[in-house]
Amino acid sequence: MLTDQDLPAAMRQISDSVDAVFADILATPPGASERLYEAMRYAAIGGGKRMRPLLVAASARLFDVAPQNALLAGVAVECVHVHSLVHDDLPCMDDDDLRRGRPTLHKRFDEATAVLAGDALLALAFGLLARPETHADPLVRAELISTLASSAGASGMASGQMMDMAAVDTTLDKDAVVQLQQLKTGAMIGWCVGAGAALGAADADQRAALSHYAQCVSLAFQIADDLLDVEGDERTVGKRLRKDDEQGKQTLVRMLGRDSARSYASDLIDRAVSSLEPFGPSAELLRSIAHFSIHRDR
Amino acid sequence: MLTDQDLPAAMRQISDSVDAVFADILATPPGASERLYEAMRYAAIGGGKRMRPLLVAASARLFDVAPQNALLAGVAVECVHVHSLVHDDLPCMDDDDLRRGRPTLHKRFDEATAVLAGDALLALAFGLLARPETHADPLVRAELISTLASSAGASGMASGQMMDMAAVDTTLDKDAVVQLQQLKTGAMIGWCVGAGAALGAADADQRAALSHYAQCVSLAFQIADDLLDVEGDERTVGKRLRKDDEQGKQTLVRMLGRDSARSYASDLIDRAVSSLEPFGPSAELLRSIAHFSIHRDR
Repeated sequence: MLTDQDLPAAMRQISDSVDAVFADILATPPGASERLYEAMRYAAIGGGKRMRPLLVAASARLFDVAPQNALLAGVAVECVHVHSLVHDDLPCMDDDDLRRGRPTLHKRFDEATAVLAGDALLALAFGLLARPETHADPLVRAELISTLASSAGASGMASGQMMDMAAVDTTLDKDAVVQLQQLKTGAMIGWCVGAGAALGAADADQRAALSHYAQCVSLAFQIADDLLDVEGDERTVGKRLRKDDEQGKQTLVRMLGRDSARSYASDLIDRAVSSLEPFGPSAELLRSIAHFSIHRDR
Repeated sequence: MLTDQDLPAAMRQISDSVDAVFADILATPPGASERLYEAMRYAAIGGGKRMRPLLVAASARLFDVAPQNALLAGVAVECVHVHSLVHDDLPCMDDDDLRRGRPTLHKRFDEATAVLAGDALLALAFGLLARPETHADPLVRAELISTLASSAGASGMASGQMMDMAAVDTTLDKDAVVQLQQLKTGAMIGWCVGAGAALGAADADQRAALSHYAQCVSLAFQIADDLLDVEGDERTVGKRLRKDDEQGKQTLVRMLGRDSARSYASDLIDRAVSSLEPFGPSAELLRSIAHFSIHRDR
């Protein structure tokens, strides 16, 4: 898997592989857990850009990591991502009916099932990382688990979501919005490229370069998301748009204006790509992902 | 810590130690995450019987595990337990206003904060287990993480909660109710005594004996809970009671009658205690916990 340097082909490969792993580990067991597994499959299989598993794989490639190791780490982070989408869509959170072009989990099932399926996906992420198939060295597995817990939890994504909800109808300055995005999406994106480095026993300089890449890409990716919220087509994007304005949410696009935000995002991508220089041609896929992150219609 | 064989003293020791660890790791960081940490502390500190950390410590004692290792593993499982209480109390789940004699988290804060604080506590559990302070050998840490993920997730507690909600106003036979309880509480109780064994490198026979102990104690504990729901004092128990009848939930107490259920629980405790025979006097605390599990007023 992921033998191709071509981005669309790599994205298809990763999507297919991620779906296959999910189909395998979320096959319905006989008995009473049927509905919970069905809900988890509904949330996890056949949707999304799979940017996070792709980033793990692209980063792992720099260090000749076995593709199967990168794939399992990628599925683990996708579990956390899907978990966060399911919980974010709940009525008490963002209250969304549409996700990836289909009814959100709590609309298709019910709210209690959405809470429990999200919880079970979060637990599954750590269970996957603990498996010997993810990496032969248990110390590497423990590092992946420890950093994922920080990135997903109170010192990362969960705090970002709290700030995001508190940011409705309040005034934040640019630094605060950048900090919010760093927690909400940056920590998890940082985990993805860091996972490739951890699986491949990268040195401190390589990890620092990749961390800088991740910071720039995640912020640019978020600006592109905010632009899509303003300019995108709901059917293509597959979720409700025009929410930021409606909810009075502070975004860089609202603060800087569309053109300045676009040029800021483009500048961030230049910086991300520069930080890949030490890796030479093996970083081609990471470069493509950086450019794609701001040139996309969904 | 936990130098005393006397159960009430041991419970106080464990409660104090668990609170101290939570106060340390959930100290509010400077900045924007204040409210999330406050909510996590509200849910985690100063309440509950701490049965799960106590079971970890009592089982670890059989194998001369360092008390600090057992304490961290106990705090991890308590994170999962508190996470499940916070999510279970949500309006879309059991819709409870009172927990441990105080307003539930979503009443004191709001529903979105309850969802996120519960999520962050679940992630924290795995982060704690990944720490070298929990055990020097990363392979032991990986085993604890892998088994906790199974016990908490779709093959354990989360499925039990799904079954429990589906069991409202339906007819289950005794085997189905026992299976429900095994998933809902048994898997996590089993993890606790198994954690002591894993930390102490117990052999297969010892693990099997402890697993049998856990199965018996968790079912007896649940029967005692169901009896408290019928007979208990709301102020002492600290949560809303008489729910099972109201919601039409199948419990062993409703199916067997109070007296038969009580004698079944007592029989289970005898079996639990028998399975401790090979461990001799070092299992005194586990024996006391077994007896306490059915003789309690909260």
